[in-house]
Amino acid sequence: MPSRSPGGDGLPRTIRGSSIGNTTVAERDGRLRATAGGHKTLPYTICVFLFRLMVGRMDMGDLLELLGIETPIVQAPMAGTATPKLAIAVSNAGALGSIGIGTSPVDQARAAIREIRSGTDRPFHVNLFCDPPANENPVRDEAWLEFLAPQFHAFGAVPPESLVDTSQSFLGNDVMLAMILEERPPVVSFHFGLPEAEVLAALKNAGIILIGCATNLEDARVIEAAGLDAVIAQGIEAGGHRGLFDLDRPDEKLGTFALTRLLARELTIPVISAGGVMDGAGIAACLALGAQAAQLGTAFIGCPESAASDDYRRALLGPDGASTTHTAAISGRPARGMVNHFMRETARPDAPEIPDYPLAYHAYKSLSAAALAAGNHDYGTRWAGQGAMLSRSMPAAELVETLKSEMSAARTRIPN
Amino acid sequence: MPSRSPGGDGLPRTIRGSSIGNTTVAERDGRLRATAGGHKTLPYTICVFLFRLMVGRMDMGDLLELLGIETPIVQAPMAGTATPKLAIAVSNAGALGSIGIGTSPVDQARAAIREIRSGTDRPFHVNLFCDPPANENPVRDEAWLEFLAPQFHAFGAVPPESLVDTSQSFLGNDVMLAMILEERPPVVSFHFGLPEAEVLAALKNAGIILIGCATNLEDARVIEAAGLDAVIAQGIEAGGHRGLFDLDRPDEKLGTFALTRLLARELTIPVISAGGVMDGAGIAACLALGAQAAQLGTAFIGCPESAASDDYRRALLGPDGASTTHTAAISGRPARGMVNHFMRETARPDAPEIPDYPLAYHAYKSLSAAALAAGNHDYGTRWAGQGAMLSRSMPAAELVETLKSEMSAARTRIPN
Repeated sequence: MPSRSPGGDGLPRTIRGSSIGNTTVAERDGRLRATAGGHKTLPYTICVFLFRLMVGRMDMGDLLELLGIETPIVQAPMAGTATPKLAIAVSNAGALGSIGIGTSPVDQARAAIREIRSGTDRPFHVNLFCDPPANENPVRDEAWLEFLAPQFHAFGAVPPESLVDTSQSFLGNDVMLAMILEERPPVVSFHFGLPEAEVLAALKNAGIILIGCATNLEDARVIEAAGLDAVIAQGIEAGGHRGLFDLDRPDEKLGTFALTRLLARELTIPVISAGGVMDGAGIAACLALGAQAAQLGTAFIGCPESAASDDYRRALLGPDGASTTHTAAISGRPARGMVNHFMRETARPDAPEIPDYPLAYHAYKSLSAAALAAGNHDYGTRWAGQGAMLSRSMPAAELVETLKSEMSAARTRIPN
Repeated sequence: MPSRSPGGDGLPRTIRGSSIGNTTVAERDGRLRATAGGHKTLPYTICVFLFRLMVGRMDMGDLLELLGIETPIVQAPMAGTATPKLAIAVSNAGALGSIGIGTSPVDQARAAIREIRSGTDRPFHVNLFCDPPANENPVRDEAWLEFLAPQFHAFGAVPPESLVDTSQSFLGNDVMLAMILEERPPVVSFHFGLPEAEVLAALKNAGIILIGCATNLEDARVIEAAGLDAVIAQGIEAGGHRGLFDLDRPDEKLGTFALTRLLARELTIPVISAGGVMDGAGIAACLALGAQAAQLGTAFIGCPESAASDDYRRALLGPDGASTTHTAAISGRPARGMVNHFMRETARPDAPEIPDYPLAYHAYKSLSAAALAAGNHDYGTRWAGQGAMLSRSMPAAELVETLKSEMSAARTRIPN
């Protein structure tokens, strides 16, 4: 274990054994760069590393070196909203572009990875879901469909007869694992937990940098103990699905502020801070708190490269963007978004138990499709983090540049 | 209205008309300093002001100038836990010491203010509650006492016959207003809303700097429109009572991160960021987000100068400090603290409606006193913010120095 800095800022000043403290890492790093295009050589990496060691400031650079990026910004993988085009633009701008394949069939996931590679030789990041198997409960599912039936009828539709499990979970998913090992994306992250130890080992052996997502200290410790390279600190402000490992444990609902600081002080692996970060000032705040990068999702939805609908874009920048809430009714797992009619209806006190993820998704998707067909736009999923109204609409490359300059400007607000 | 900065960081680069943009303010500032001891002269203040204007960076200094403090740290007033001794130590260390008199009778409040003045010639800060009158509802109150009766009996006690309203609200409180105008504390802040416009005017005319507390953009806009000098952005992470203006409106539960950024960008008055800030890294993050100071409560509970019990201190630094939650059952208004037995019992689904603030407080205080008399320490109020386990136990003056050096260190983590 590296020693902790005496200054009490919780950031180890010594080299991190598991990530960049020995030649294995330089080799791994070199391999990563080779995979990602090899625009930086191994001797270069070693020189940078030795220089950093000499000047005694490993803090800022560890994670950026590891990921092979220039600026401490990760575009969140946002399954369904992030696109290969968005990832390409972000990676080419020096940040980490990402794609979420947690709900994609293997062929589609492979195609997305290949599309990104065709557009950039820089590192990028692929996110997988590790949702446990849904519990079968026909009585519960039937009650849910019965509860939703009047809404279906209002759109001249009928509920599905039963709920279908469309999970593309990475748990026990040998076909997806084989694809990932073949395509070798430079960075892979996991949501809703972690895959099996042997799967992690196989991915590590393939030179892939691995990141877990924690909403609390306990999950973060599991990620660290499993040997992953970095952890995303997902605060309660974050849009989309909360990455809770265990839905049966009470959710502490830690804010990005407290969670980032807690993980930065308690862990030895680098922290990537996420949740409610909309601009460069927010990124600077994450770094001040001890994170080595920030992950922004909502901030990138307004980019022309995202897959967001016009409705979604308009809502983000309007008054709806000021007010988001959590619901488990859309997918079966808690997720934050702008309130739509479905969320309001399913928050009623007489609503029955929500089916497990992703069974609930089937009901919701059927209903929202029926609503849209009938011209009702108030059933669309509009995941968004707190402060969404501070997001902007501009091309991704321009946004990354804007974020960088805002980040530098924010630094001047802290006294020396 | 001052113009907004073109850089879009939301911090006006022009002079703030209402706070520091004209001689009135210099006069007010001079008066404040005279009141607080007069260790800086009016010409000095004007010189600093003109220098700041010349170099074109008003951002950092506005609020510190206005409050007459050296470092952007406000010790939270924490009624019942903050003491005059704590405020004295903090103010003498160059930050803003504070006392909460929101639950104190007038004589006691006056004595506290005088005690602070006897120990420091620096500015300090007094917090008042603006809770609206509790609704009378004997049926509801009786049901609540009946629900709690078995817990009273377990300690060989009986519930009170009825609930007594012990509110010391500043609303319509002419005696408290007269005392404040006589004692003239340099800074006054309000929780749970704002007092009447004529009360605000009287306080302003007396040269008192006024601060409101907002948990959302709407309340912050009310504070700005009422002409207050600054706003506290109280994030969901904050320990103690949430400063909600209207309990009937859905609570957006904005985190410190999103709320600070939102207010810093949308308002023209300075923002003081609060909630989950435990160390200098957190303060730096608040400043990066555009706040001009941070307010820390939990971080000061471990100081020997606070009134916290030994149980409370031990709990803060133990595993309980990692897990806090909101309850309205203790006082009648939502507040965050470490979970105790009372909070668990009253979170049961069969719990009846909670009486209005501060009626519920009467029931709770009677029960916790009975528990303590019977040797049960699991009924104590232990308000705390998220990340409480990161707080420390050291004398307040030393803590302020530590926070300052941590703040500077955090700056170096943001790239230039």
